[in-house]
Amino acid sequence: MAAVKLDASARDSQLQPLLAPEGGWHLVEGRDAIQKTFMFQDFNEAFGFMTRVAIKADKMDHHPEWFNVYNKVDITLSTHDCQGLSGRDITLATFIDALTK
Amino acid sequence: MAAVKLDASARDSQLQPLLAPEGGWHLVEGRDAIQKTFMFQDFNEAFGFMTRVAIKADKMDHHPEWFNVYNKVDITLSTHDCQGLSGRDITLATFIDALTK
Repeated sequence: MAAVKLDASARDSQLQPLLAPEGGWHLVEGRDAIQKTFMFQDFNEAFGFMTRVAIKADKMDHHPEWFNVYNKVDITLSTHDCQGLSGRDITLATFIDALTK
Repeated sequence: MAAVKLDASARDSQLQPLLAPEGGWHLVEGRDAIQKTFMFQDFNEAFGFMTRVAIKADKMDHHPEWFNVYNKVDITLSTHDCQGLSGRDITLATFIDALTK
């Protein structure tokens, strides 16, 4: 099923909690996308985290845009199909956050 | 042992082949670093490649700066210790290239 952009109600109920200070995500300027930076002890821990996200992402067929250097991982989520944020981004962001709690 | 910057002779003999058209690497503007983009069939193949690089990089204790989205991986190499290109970057670039041949 094609992804559809989050509607106003879903933005309030599902996106806002991620964007709140305790959620730690922020909107990317000029795009309907969210971004968050994750810090780890070292590269082993960072890449272990990336591997867990990668397996989930490929299973969902919904892939992050991400940058890593040593213990830092920057993740941007958006949905190519609908050129913006969809429920898939909420699902993946929630999964990612759960890994780091 | 601390990394040292490539000297002029090493730049000629080791760096230039990577920067040649068949090498595919290029210097990053404003930094003493090299960059190359790798394309794969899909995310599974791209992340498999990243995993092979990650294991090597952590063994060398020399880590890439890299960005991935779906089947594309952009890799930047430079050596933090010496603020520029060292033999470690040549070694890692050569290893990375061998994976994709």
